[in-house]
Amino acid sequence: MGPSVLPVAPTRGRLRPLGLDEVRITGGFWARRRHTNESATLGHCRDWMERVGWTGNFRAAAQGRAHRDRRGREFADSEVYKLLEAMAWQAGPGSPLDTDIAALTEVVASAQEPDGYLNTAFGHPGQPARYSDLEWGHELYCNGFLIQAGVAQARARGEGEGELTKIARRTADHVCATFGRGGIEGVCGHPEIETALVELARATGEQRYLDQAAIFIDRRGHGTLADGEFGRVYYQDDVPVRRATVLRGHAVRALYLAAGAVDVAVETGDDDLLDAVVRQWEATVARRTHLTGGMGSHHRDESFGDDFVLPPDRSYSETCAGVASVMLSWRLLLATGDPRYADLAERTLFNVVATSPAEDGRAFFYANTLHRRHRGAVPAADAVSARAESSLRAPWFAVSCCPTNVARTLAQLPAYLATADDHGLQLHQYADAEIATSLAGGHDVALRVRTDYPSGGTVSVRIDRSSSGRPWTVSLRVPAWTQGATAWLVDPDGARRTVPPGMAEVTRRFRPGDEIRLELPVRPRWIRADPRVDAVRGTVAVQRGPLVYCAESVDLPGGHDVEVIRVDPAASPKDGPDGTVVTPGQITAYDVQRDGTWPYRPLDAAAAEPSTDRAEIVLVPYHSWANRGPSTVRVWLPVVEPTRAIPPDSTPTGR
Amino acid sequence: MGPSVLPVAPTRGRLRPLGLDEVRITGGFWARRRHTNESATLGHCRDWMERVGWTGNFRAAAQGRAHRDRRGREFADSEVYKLLEAMAWQAGPGSPLDTDIAALTEVVASAQEPDGYLNTAFGHPGQPARYSDLEWGHELYCNGFLIQAGVAQARARGEGEGELTKIARRTADHVCATFGRGGIEGVCGHPEIETALVELARATGEQRYLDQAAIFIDRRGHGTLADGEFGRVYYQDDVPVRRATVLRGHAVRALYLAAGAVDVAVETGDDDLLDAVVRQWEATVARRTHLTGGMGSHHRDESFGDDFVLPPDRSYSETCAGVASVMLSWRLLLATGDPRYADLAERTLFNVVATSPAEDGRAFFYANTLHRRHRGAVPAADAVSARAESSLRAPWFAVSCCPTNVARTLAQLPAYLATADDHGLQLHQYADAEIATSLAGGHDVALRVRTDYPSGGTVSVRIDRSSSGRPWTVSLRVPAWTQGATAWLVDPDGARRTVPPGMAEVTRRFRPGDEIRLELPVRPRWIRADPRVDAVRGTVAVQRGPLVYCAESVDLPGGHDVEVIRVDPAASPKDGPDGTVVTPGQITAYDVQRDGTWPYRPLDAAAAEPSTDRAEIVLVPYHSWANRGPSTVRVWLPVVEPTRAIPPDSTPTGR
Repeated sequence: MGPSVLPVAPTRGRLRPLGLDEVRITGGFWARRRHTNESATLGHCRDWMERVGWTGNFRAAAQGRAHRDRRGREFADSEVYKLLEAMAWQAGPGSPLDTDIAALTEVVASAQEPDGYLNTAFGHPGQPARYSDLEWGHELYCNGFLIQAGVAQARARGEGEGELTKIARRTADHVCATFGRGGIEGVCGHPEIETALVELARATGEQRYLDQAAIFIDRRGHGTLADGEFGRVYYQDDVPVRRATVLRGHAVRALYLAAGAVDVAVETGDDDLLDAVVRQWEATVARRTHLTGGMGSHHRDESFGDDFVLPPDRSYSETCAGVASVMLSWRLLLATGDPRYADLAERTLFNVVATSPAEDGRAFFYANTLHRRHRGAVPAADAVSARAESSLRAPWFAVSCCPTNVARTLAQLPAYLATADDHGLQLHQYADAEIATSLAGGHDVALRVRTDYPSGGTVSVRIDRSSSGRPWTVSLRVPAWTQGATAWLVDPDGARRTVPPGMAEVTRRFRPGDEIRLELPVRPRWIRADPRVDAVRGTVAVQRGPLVYCAESVDLPGGHDVEVIRVDPAASPKDGPDGTVVTPGQITAYDVQRDGTWPYRPLDAAAAEPSTDRAEIVLVPYHSWANRGPSTVRVWLPVVEPTRAIPPDSTPTGR
Repeated sequence: MGPSVLPVAPTRGRLRPLGLDEVRITGGFWARRRHTNESATLGHCRDWMERVGWTGNFRAAAQGRAHRDRRGREFADSEVYKLLEAMAWQAGPGSPLDTDIAALTEVVASAQEPDGYLNTAFGHPGQPARYSDLEWGHELYCNGFLIQAGVAQARARGEGEGELTKIARRTADHVCATFGRGGIEGVCGHPEIETALVELARATGEQRYLDQAAIFIDRRGHGTLADGEFGRVYYQDDVPVRRATVLRGHAVRALYLAAGAVDVAVETGDDDLLDAVVRQWEATVARRTHLTGGMGSHHRDESFGDDFVLPPDRSYSETCAGVASVMLSWRLLLATGDPRYADLAERTLFNVVATSPAEDGRAFFYANTLHRRHRGAVPAADAVSARAESSLRAPWFAVSCCPTNVARTLAQLPAYLATADDHGLQLHQYADAEIATSLAGGHDVALRVRTDYPSGGTVSVRIDRSSSGRPWTVSLRVPAWTQGATAWLVDPDGARRTVPPGMAEVTRRFRPGDEIRLELPVRPRWIRADPRVDAVRGTVAVQRGPLVYCAESVDLPGGHDVEVIRVDPAASPKDGPDGTVVTPGQITAYDVQRDGTWPYRPLDAAAAEPSTDRAEIVLVPYHSWANRGPSTVRVWLPVVEPTRAIPPDSTPTGR
């Protein structure tokens, strides 16, 4: 097993990741989120899985009563594995989570068959046969998360060949024996095992796991899965990975598959495959991604829409698609060094991954709509939510993939902050942090990041250690969202230069105490969409730094819902109190009683317009919405009509 | 059985419907559609049901091999019944369709159980038990269509208690015995039987069928059905009919239920129930209906969206919801006499029901999107389409409810044209037609309608017969779409008066040869939506008479797709050749190579705009689209930006 606590540890690529033993988040936005994750979310997930019987499924399988007693959907096993992975990254050796990890590992171990097969929904007496339903059975998907948990235990807890890692290896060996050359010529309806097998190959040095991952990548897209209700595109079995031009079908499936393809491409030096995924990423980000970084427009099949089909009110933006998008972007960043991947990861972390969990870490959005018109109700704290569209965050779901996915992402978050290469160290995400690693030639370096990002835009990087007098480079990502504004870099000499989006570099013989300062322009700005994003025509959004903002009904006067507001983009949005943004706008007094019977009318027909009042519109970070009770929300804000633009200092127009 | 060939024959209500024996469509738009229905669609449906085994299911059930040989979904039986109903209304006595009707009736008869139960998917050896799955089993739904077919045979073919009618009565008796007071306290997951039972009560005079329908209406909304994936709202089991304020859940279910509730309300004099449905209709039309009259926004569960959630590109607007909406509007028109119901029926008939079938009557839209961005492919003429979202009309579907529903609606269409009351005759829909009936006191009247509607706006009504010298009234609906324009009525004396939307009346002692002329302003007009319909902000649509128009890529120069066009609402759309509408606009030359990697940007950031050329945009009736090969389409057309409005007579702005 490798020496560093790395969620993703490629043996090649442009950048070398730093592990959880090299990067520590010490304060700020993500430290708070990780604290909640450790103190609330992990236990919440453990308790719910016990309660709904998903942990018990392993006991039932071990005791020969799986057919009678198994609970949950086909993929319930995977949630236990994802929780184990999350606990491993979050805990570190000697953590109080050790008891939970040991107990869950014992439960999982009890259900493994002698030949390595492990799944509580198939293959036991009275159940469907193993691999009898590759389209929907999720067996290899579950195996993938088991393998990831095994790798995490090995790397994060220094267990080497600890119990869970052994279970994972036995499972992986079983998969290779069953689906390798000469075996079943199939793939899983839900990709995930590809990336897991590559990571196991990296962790163990065993080539056969990588070979098996490459087989699965190459086999997909040839129609081995049935052409079901949503078509083969749903599980990306329509076109081979290396021939596809855009991500399509079920969003989480598409993104996990792409992540696995990058892993295979990097380890095998397959530049054609890597280029194919880069092209797909580019087309997807350019035409199929919400402002928040959210992916997936269709509720029906949780899938990508066509190009530019990005309706705010039916934005699905599944939390797990956000997690998977960060996984993909991170792998592409390591492979290529291109900061655009860190840009999208930042956007997605702050506006999708951070949006899902409630402030208390005990309820989650499954889908992340950008516009909700009705307030709905707070899901009961003790009930399983049947539907992804619950009006507020729910404690648990019948399909509960998102809570554990958020948990494992927050747990491994420090590993996404920085990388190294032969020349120095790169900072990709900004948080209060302490970073220490060895550069080439045993050159030990350490630095400390201080920032109030994303509230503020100042990032201070202080050199704490540099064991050699050789020059090296600190690179800081200047986010793409600074486009059109001015970002400044102040080097240790006090020299100040403007820096365009990309990587800003400072190279010198650093000495302890040297400080680099990056000043990012986080003032709020109006954002508009390509006119082909039809669903947001005539609207603008506000972004402040990496944060997308929204109007939430609880901030509107008079108990109004968000349907009544308009903003005037001729005015600049300004910082308000407590992290809010304020901007002048209008409130229209719709009178439901006067609505009439038909919402369309001739442009040339006279009609009474509803009265309109001037108002200051308060906006809050999108990730924070729905923490103050039932509310309506919108990210894209209709603009005042040209003939109605509000002149400065005019009196109210309404009533 | 009643004396007239009436699809819907209430015993009370403001207006008396006229039967297929009293109204004959002699030419024009609907005559062509009905001809295609008779000459192509009915045989097409018959052949497909034989081919996919849905007719064979009855033979299999009769021969005890239903468990092994049954084909299709739970509700496949209903398609055979809907086809029988369509054939009955279309054919009349002595038609060449007689052979088909007799053959299909014999097949159906063979599968009826001695106790009246008839369903090929349940209750036979090896199948699930009868009524073991009220949520999804569709048994009562199928029974409903069987009953409707029995009523149609009796009324349209003068068969009285013919074979199919006897089968239907035995089935209805079985339903009453099973689900009446003291029986199963349940309802069907798909409403339909309610309206069918009332019609059978009307046709037979048997009170028990009406009582059973009233039981089903009152029983729904009390949560007797399971709270499944889409919630009880999906099958309207969330709130009792008389307490609901808007149609919600699965659109076809909601509309069939509302139609049945009107039938029960009318027959039992239950004004509260009628008022409840009127309120639901009003709220639904005001906030949940597309410009075409299409209903249902969600693909996931084929359901209504929230208020004002009417995205053109994800408009579901299921064809069957259009059919069901016409059924509901027609019943409300008969009950109340309010022309707004005929307005919506007209809009829905021309823009939803008429859109579904291809020109040749052998392929159908299941869903009717208002915006398609990719051209897709023509479904194979010999393949069953698995999905509602096929890019073009498909010959048959795995769920093939729409073809037979279109067929039975076109077959009974003459019955929707006119009604009578004590004072005279009302014309609700305009087509070349001959109408003859008896008014109160044995006063026989006949008239002839001549019009090129909807292409032209002149409707001529000539009196052919009036057997008494008493004065009577001819009322003509002035459609709501004339709002803001001028409609004229010319009475037999040549007196000309403007008439507002509503009913225009001419009362006199009519003599043969008297002519009334209605002049409707069918010039094309820009339509805009309530600003709360967020998805169409910044766009306009064109309506000409009752027809909604669209831009279809086959009419754009240079192989462009519809994403490139904008229109200038400052100019008036004008009639073009062959029923088209033309209007000045722009074509934007998007360059996919130059798209960049992110479709959002700051309002204050400079960026190269794609070049734009002036162009004449050609629009065609929406119902006609997709008859010229794969194409893209949009009903809602983006408007030129204010700063870019095209000055009259300016030179091209682009390149």
